[in-house]
Amino acid sequence: MSAIVFLIQCKDQKGLVAGITSFFAERQFNILHCQQYTDTEVGQYFMRIKLEDDGHFNHQKLEAEFSQFASTIDLNWSVRYSEEPYRVALLVTRASHCPYDLLLRELEGELKCDIPLIIGNHRDLEDMARQFDKPFYHLPITAETKQAQEAEIKRLLAEFDIDLIVMARYMQILSEDFVTEFSGRIINIHHGFLPAFQGAKPYHQAYERGVKIIGATAHYATAELDEGPIIAQDIQHVQHDNSPQDLVMMGKDIERIVLARAVKAHIEHRIIINGRRTIVFSEGA
Amino acid sequence: MSAIVFLIQCKDQKGLVAGITSFFAERQFNILHCQQYTDTEVGQYFMRIKLEDDGHFNHQKLEAEFSQFASTIDLNWSVRYSEEPYRVALLVTRASHCPYDLLLRELEGELKCDIPLIIGNHRDLEDMARQFDKPFYHLPITAETKQAQEAEIKRLLAEFDIDLIVMARYMQILSEDFVTEFSGRIINIHHGFLPAFQGAKPYHQAYERGVKIIGATAHYATAELDEGPIIAQDIQHVQHDNSPQDLVMMGKDIERIVLARAVKAHIEHRIIINGRRTIVFSEGA
Amino acid sequence: MSAIVFLIQCKDQKGLVAGITSFFAERQFNILHCQQYTDTEVGQYFMRIKLEDDGHFNHQKLEAEFSQFASTIDLNWSVRYSEEPYRVALLVTRASHCPYDLLLRELEGELKCDIPLIIGNHRDLEDMARQFDKPFYHLPITAETKQAQEAEIKRLLAEFDIDLIVMARYMQILSEDFVTEFSGRIINIHHGFLPAFQGAKPYHQAYERGVKIIGATAHYATAELDEGPIIAQDIQHVQHDNSPQDLVMMGKDIERIVLARAVKAHIEHRIIINGRRTIVFSEGA
Amino acid sequence: MSAIVFLIQCKDQKGLVAGITSFFAERQFNILHCQQYTDTEVGQYFMRIKLEDDGHFNHQKLEAEFSQFASTIDLNWSVRYSEEPYRVALLVTRASHCPYDLLLRELEGELKCDIPLIIGNHRDLEDMARQFDKPFYHLPITAETKQAQEAEIKRLLAEFDIDLIVMARYMQILSEDFVTEFSGRIINIHHGFLPAFQGAKPYHQAYERGVKIIGATAHYATAELDEGPIIAQDIQHVQHDNSPQDLVMMGKDIERIVLARAVKAHIEHRIIINGRRTIVFSEGA
Repeated sequence: MSAIVFLIQCKDQKGLVAGITSFFAERQFNILHCQQYTDTEVGQYFMRIKLEDDGHFNHQKLEAEFSQFASTIDLNWSVRYSEEPYRVALLVTRASHCPYDLLLRELEGELKCDIPLIIGNHRDLEDMARQFDKPFYHLPITAETKQAQEAEIKRLLAEFDIDLIVMARYMQILSEDFVTEFSGRIINIHHGFLPAFQGAKPYHQAYERGVKIIGATAHYATAELDEGPIIAQDIQHVQHDNSPQDLVMMGKDIERIVLARAVKAHIEHRIIINGRRTIVFSEGA
Repeated sequence: MSAIVFLIQCKDQKGLVAGITSFFAERQFNILHCQQYTDTEVGQYFMRIKLEDDGHFNHQKLEAEFSQFASTIDLNWSVRYSEEPYRVALLVTRASHCPYDLLLRELEGELKCDIPLIIGNHRDLEDMARQFDKPFYHLPITAETKQAQEAEIKRLLAEFDIDLIVMARYMQILSEDFVTEFSGRIINIHHGFLPAFQGAKPYHQAYERGVKIIGATAHYATAELDEGPIIAQDIQHVQHDNSPQDLVMMGKDIERIVLARAVKAHIEHRIIINGRRTIVFSEGA
Repeated sequence: MSAIVFLIQCKDQKGLVAGITSFFAERQFNILHCQQYTDTEVGQYFMRIKLEDDGHFNHQKLEAEFSQFASTIDLNWSVRYSEEPYRVALLVTRASHCPYDLLLRELEGELKCDIPLIIGNHRDLEDMARQFDKPFYHLPITAETKQAQEAEIKRLLAEFDIDLIVMARYMQILSEDFVTEFSGRIINIHHGFLPAFQGAKPYHQAYERGVKIIGATAHYATAELDEGPIIAQDIQHVQHDNSPQDLVMMGKDIERIVLARAVKAHIEHRIIINGRRTIVFSEGA
Repeated sequence: MSAIVFLIQCKDQKGLVAGITSFFAERQFNILHCQQYTDTEVGQYFMRIKLEDDGHFNHQKLEAEFSQFASTIDLNWSVRYSEEPYRVALLVTRASHCPYDLLLRELEGELKCDIPLIIGNHRDLEDMARQFDKPFYHLPITAETKQAQEAEIKRLLAEFDIDLIVMARYMQILSEDFVTEFSGRIINIHHGFLPAFQGAKPYHQAYERGVKIIGATAHYATAELDEGPIIAQDIQHVQHDNSPQDLVMMGKDIERIVLARAVKAHIEHRIIINGRRTIVFSEGA
């Protein structure tokens, strides 16, 4: 079933649900799902509304009319149509487990998106790209070439009409300019339980500290490293007899699952960024 | 903040959200929370709506007007006011961990209900009741006295104006008549992961089968033993070196948490029974 | 570091640890790991002992001497050398998520085994096999050809010198003769939380029953369907708004992880079957 | 069944298991459980060995002989007898959930220890102590009286012959002298997932940072706040719609369970401190 999803954000005020749902009811839309959240600390209201798209109403007309309605009560909003799936680029380096996982989930229909582009700063995953018949661009990076490399990445993102960039264990820090330009459209996986163990070698940090749980964190990239809004986290219990190498190995499954969960939420248009926090509306039919 | 919670159920049809939320918007209610679910397999729509109760609208008037509105679109509904907390009776036998847990959560404000009545078929937990200054009624039971005992339970439930009966490891089977009379108002905790390990000694059954996970299940009691609609379940991983006695011990924490979670959902008016299934709306402010 | 692993089982008796560890100490072995378990209900003792294999002691000589020692105290035992990894065959049908997962874990060194053979009763996964440069044998099956098909499977298992057969969502029932011949060497993944939801369509059964948790179970195949000794299980919480199709999708990650965990335990020679139960010694360096 | 438990630590060397287990085998001890761990990074060996105590061997004689044996291979060791359960003091302030939980687990036999002493810096939990017939000492604390208060605590610990001090949400910082004197014998529960969210108000910190998981950490107290060796941790998933107050409430169950798990490990003599890390041997019969 085709669907239309609106994400809406505005100052909290009375009558919002009634007002918004009436807008769609008057246009004969069947509401498949409606979720909302009020952040009482900052007085903001957030809504996700999913409509059946049986073609009875022209998309352009809908957007025009909703835009007019929204301006009357000062709504911020965005809309996606299930017919136009997100286009996702993977930034990779040498580690294969996260990119492989995303490619498989695309293949098996778990992630309803297109992954038309893989960019690696090393050649290691070129074979992986070939396995899945994906174009692979090798863009090596050094201190001197960083700016040129990012320019080339941007060119490719434009060429392939990319909506979402996934740093699938890319292990490079994107420049502030780059991150700002694609704000809210870059998802990174950090192999640690943020905000603990920021920076390099988080599993080794975790081992040193003697924690009994390791974790991974998917978040939007921001100019401050490992400080962006968190989308998903998960953990695994560990024991004294797990070496740092064990932790690295055990962490792979958490990284895969957490990154996939974050990408899934984004491409299902279920996330609104609210300052340092994210609203992640729950999955549903 | 005082609140009013409606649970609503009806045949799925267009315009429901808009219609219902408009009803409350027209009466100047602030909607704190609105959750819904459509069971597309049976074509039923379910909603929970939580309103701020600032006293501007008389409760009786509200019910009268909503009743009239509801009849026009054939809604089933119920309402609760946070000012009138659920009154809960505990049925207990010898095991103390579940009843203790509920009493503590009442004491610490985690469960916003009143527990004015404890009934035991043994005297073992009389001291526990005394610790918490609760009336304890010792109603022993044998095959011959079962009917009379249940009659006495019913008399006490009426006397204490009880809304919800919690079988906190009561280990007795209530008669079909009893269960039918209090349908949807009796929560039982089964110390197994239903539908596996129904009946007696579930931890021993689990040990025999060699499972690697044990669980507990809170459900509404129905005439068929261990077959009622499930409200909450949780599990714990076990290993080969855990004896049946270990499982019994380890299971206590799961039983406590699962039962408390189910009772909390019920007294927050978050559950609608849908045949053999339950809709449990998520927690929120 | 190369290693030697012994699995030992015998009637419980005093002095076992001292006796066995002294055997290896006298031969100048460094014990890397020693785990044991006593099943007091049946009076059986189980041990896993992992030795550093620095080449100072000939393998054949070790086995001969241990064999003599074992006969004096009536030990059952087996030994594996890390230099000779398990050879694993995959039986597959149409579902790709489990076989893909195992192939990736082999590729990334998470599973230290060789997977030299994939057999499918449909052609759907031939491409997957090609992606990983693995031989794929298409052996279709009907009621009439079942015996011949199994004979051909056996021939391939022998030809490829296979130690372990993994039914990676094979969805066919192997004959009693087959299962008996390869007893303790066939791992199956059941997409339900055994012993609940045996048989077909477990996720649909789970939905019908309204459970709040779904699971998967990896077990050794035995003549009785879904009754073999359980190796690993895991679960995921679900909600009222997850459709049967959602459960199928959500279940994939549990199936992958549970099957991988079971295969890993087997190829690390960490499992002893004890009647209907398994002893699964914990992971370690 | 009575039992004797040895914890042993020494430089790693060949023949340790054989040597130590032979010591006990020669004295006709039945070994119920033997666990070991080698920290290869620092070259240290750790063992826990549990013996059946059928009275055939005098405890004093055993200790004398083992002491002599230990000196020959430079072992650090300690021993506990199940007949002499740990004596535990609770330090409390106003929050009741952790101390209540420990008292209940003692009552129900889940924690095989004695809790003969409760010390509070406020009177709030005096009633709780009375409910369980425990002596309660009210020792208020100000900047001026801190030293005198700690002296009085020490006097009580001596008077009641206390082995283990549990800071059951005590919310006070013990002086460096105090902590050093009782090194390895003070367990604290921190209501955050260390090393994230050290210091005050961890749930509020977690909310601000927008994490999707909250946790609790039980650790040995050291002079550096929240830096002591971690014994146990656990977590709970949270969502965008959980307020800081929700997190506080939801965290209680994690705190209870994590603290109880740590205390249980300590009183079962299953923990060895290894620098900033702990070895926590697994539970077993």
